[in-house]
Amino acid sequence: MLRREERLALTEIEEFVQHVRESLTVLGEQPALQTELSGQIARLLLPLHPADIAEIITELTPALRVRLLGSVRINVEAYTYLDDVLRDELIELHGVVALSGILTQLESDDLIDLIEDIEDTRRSELIQHLPIEAQEFVRAGLSFDEDTAGRLMRREMVAVPQHWLVGEIIDHLRLHRQELPERFASIYLVDPFHRPVATIETSQLLCHRRNTPAVEIGKDPYPFAPDQHEKEVARAFRKYNLVEAPVVNETGKLIGSLTLDDMVQVTHEAVSDDLLNISGVGSDDFYADFLGTAKLRFSWLFVNLLTALLASLVIGFFQHAIEQVVALAVLMPIAASMGGNAGTQSLAISIRALATTHLTRFQRSRIVLKETLVACLNGCAFAAITAFVAYLWFDSPWIAVIVGIALLLNMVLAGCLGSFLPLMLERMKIDPAAASPIILTTATDIVGFSIFLGSATFMLAY
Amino acid sequence: MLRREERLALTEIEEFVQHVRESLTVLGEQPALQTELSGQIARLLLPLHPADIAEIITELTPALRVRLLGSVRINVEAYTYLDDVLRDELIELHGVVALSGILTQLESDDLIDLIEDIEDTRRSELIQHLPIEAQEFVRAGLSFDEDTAGRLMRREMVAVPQHWLVGEIIDHLRLHRQELPERFASIYLVDPFHRPVATIETSQLLCHRRNTPAVEIGKDPYPFAPDQHEKEVARAFRKYNLVEAPVVNETGKLIGSLTLDDMVQVTHEAVSDDLLNISGVGSDDFYADFLGTAKLRFSWLFVNLLTALLASLVIGFFQHAIEQVVALAVLMPIAASMGGNAGTQSLAISIRALATTHLTRFQRSRIVLKETLVACLNGCAFAAITAFVAYLWFDSPWIAVIVGIALLLNMVLAGCLGSFLPLMLERMKIDPAAASPIILTTATDIVGFSIFLGSATFMLAY
Repeated sequence: MLRREERLALTEIEEFVQHVRESLTVLGEQPALQTELSGQIARLLLPLHPADIAEIITELTPALRVRLLGSVRINVEAYTYLDDVLRDELIELHGVVALSGILTQLESDDLIDLIEDIEDTRRSELIQHLPIEAQEFVRAGLSFDEDTAGRLMRREMVAVPQHWLVGEIIDHLRLHRQELPERFASIYLVDPFHRPVATIETSQLLCHRRNTPAVEIGKDPYPFAPDQHEKEVARAFRKYNLVEAPVVNETGKLIGSLTLDDMVQVTHEAVSDDLLNISGVGSDDFYADFLGTAKLRFSWLFVNLLTALLASLVIGFFQHAIEQVVALAVLMPIAASMGGNAGTQSLAISIRALATTHLTRFQRSRIVLKETLVACLNGCAFAAITAFVAYLWFDSPWIAVIVGIALLLNMVLAGCLGSFLPLMLERMKIDPAAASPIILTTATDIVGFSIFLGSATFMLAY
Repeated sequence: MLRREERLALTEIEEFVQHVRESLTVLGEQPALQTELSGQIARLLLPLHPADIAEIITELTPALRVRLLGSVRINVEAYTYLDDVLRDELIELHGVVALSGILTQLESDDLIDLIEDIEDTRRSELIQHLPIEAQEFVRAGLSFDEDTAGRLMRREMVAVPQHWLVGEIIDHLRLHRQELPERFASIYLVDPFHRPVATIETSQLLCHRRNTPAVEIGKDPYPFAPDQHEKEVARAFRKYNLVEAPVVNETGKLIGSLTLDDMVQVTHEAVSDDLLNISGVGSDDFYADFLGTAKLRFSWLFVNLLTALLASLVIGFFQHAIEQVVALAVLMPIAASMGGNAGTQSLAISIRALATTHLTRFQRSRIVLKETLVACLNGCAFAAITAFVAYLWFDSPWIAVIVGIALLLNMVLAGCLGSFLPLMLERMKIDPAAASPIILTTATDIVGFSIFLGSATFMLAY
């Protein structure tokens, strides 16, 4: 019998959401109908793919979400498809003891993924309610740092002695089907010390005769250490086109397995976090309610205000020059803004390079050198254009000269700083995407205004 | 025998690059040593994993790269690991006829991926030199639009009649091993019209007894149409945790297969292109030489210059007010800059949402509504802070009031516009990441300066 999992089209999801939302609204107004309505919603969600249930939950407003999760029991697998923030909400609501029973249905990596996000006090309570063996691997999993291979790996995997034949492996798999993970892309051949000596892809096992020694169709394993960062692992998976890779401890013993589908998630999160961070938004931002979001963003905007005030202070320092020649106020923003824009381009190149590959020393210096050169070239071009426009506009050669000089110097600084900053911050273990833009903007604003207004003041004095 | 593929650690790559670079430099100086040196380099690269060869090529300067590719024959598989721009360079150098022979070793999706990037005239020449069957599927592949499932799909796959037993499938696979793709995660069960009725994961085939009807262990297939956009496909893969999915034509016939490893690439490229585009950098930028990069960026910076000049024009329009009260020039950048920053936050949220999920109407309006509300809240907070600072600084209540009003209005506009723009541009089939930031900055600059200086002019007149 075919296992049918209903998957919904986009318009169907909208209908479901609409329906759930209406039921929940009624439920809020008439608590007497609680049992009937929550039963209705549960029946509605039951046949859906857990990913679709998760999407419907995501689409609700926070208030309705609380009501839904408070009154309807949700397919536990849907939890693994939710974003971190929403998942927390769910777990808080359901209560720890009620959860522990169903949670053991999950595979080890999903379970740890869920548990690691729960706050400390609830977490240890929850772990105590799990079966002994689950307790053990959850504790082992949590002993590794967050975002490492050790946290990400799955403990269920297939490892067989290295001398087995293809036929023996297949017999073994048929016999132990119930204990195996639902899906695996590779099996591992191990030596007597349980060290992986080869990885065999399932498709290769299927294509070879029973009497083929398994080691003949194996590939060299690409083992990871449990403390390697997940981004590094994802990079290696992308680079070498891996589908599954072993995790080994310091003695080389096989302790877990990493799979390609986890890497899709890691890759996606890594780059989209950069996209948010470079714009001054944290990753929690999206699912918080509007008050929470406003709070989260306040501090970043506050730092920006300080930056803007600092720029104003610089301008204030030269206000005497502006009083004499108001054209300075008119042209003042150009050098700062062009520097900021050119610097942002260099910044993006560095941040993307950091997210994509492990940069060698040579690549790092090449990026900075190239960005500075590019900034010099474009700086000259735009200095000339801007000086020309300024000359035509204000009919003053010296204003034209100083706007050109300020623009050139600021763009060169921006290119150099913009590319260098992320590389330096990464070495200092500071998130480059989050910290670089604000430092860059401050620098280009202050330098842009200072050079322009400073040289004007100098010229006016002599 | 174990298939060993040497994979290099980061420091080893640096050494290899160093070595290759030195050899190539010598080769440039002493062309007489050409045969000996290129032989040396070829032997050096031979045992490496193609992904490492690709990385070494990427690490060279463009000039050395040309020299390497002009004198050393590279493992053809390395081509598939290169970025688009570098791949073009390689193909131009090797010449079309020499390539066609080796290219047929690639699997259909890699081959099409390579050929689609070659310029038109060379492309048709190259296709003519391929074997007839390869010609056919390359032409078929190219008939689909770029970035669609049709381009991405692999034509080699395993499809068997729906009534087969597990044992029959395994026998079939063993018999036809030579014609099968090197790696497959699923096989398809098809009806007499070659329409997929179920997907079976290879691990499931291995775990079940020979006399099990295959359809019993199958899952509902999740078919894609060949004209679906690859980003949409990648989203569905992520959402439903798919590993392989069929592509069917309009009659439902199985014509190709999409695999998870392609999706990792698509996911990675989609989000990192957004990261570059939002900062005004094209995706070709990274691998161009510095002259090429400078050219690529010139146009975007030029548009920014026009924006900056427009802002200057606005300031110029109010210079009479600045002449009277120079404090206006000092505080002028604050409202514009805070608006720009708040707007960028909203922009990132919208762009990330577009990249991650297929947004429903409800989600779209919720994003805009929430961003506007958040902007109102933070706008009020920062208007108060800024007005207070301005009052202390210049001891003038009316300057404090107008800077507060300008800041509030500009931040609200920025939140609303920043979140709405990407959604609107996407509907208009314009890349939201590339176009939104410049429109947003222009708007926040002009509105920020106009409201602040405009209301000052008004106040000064009465």
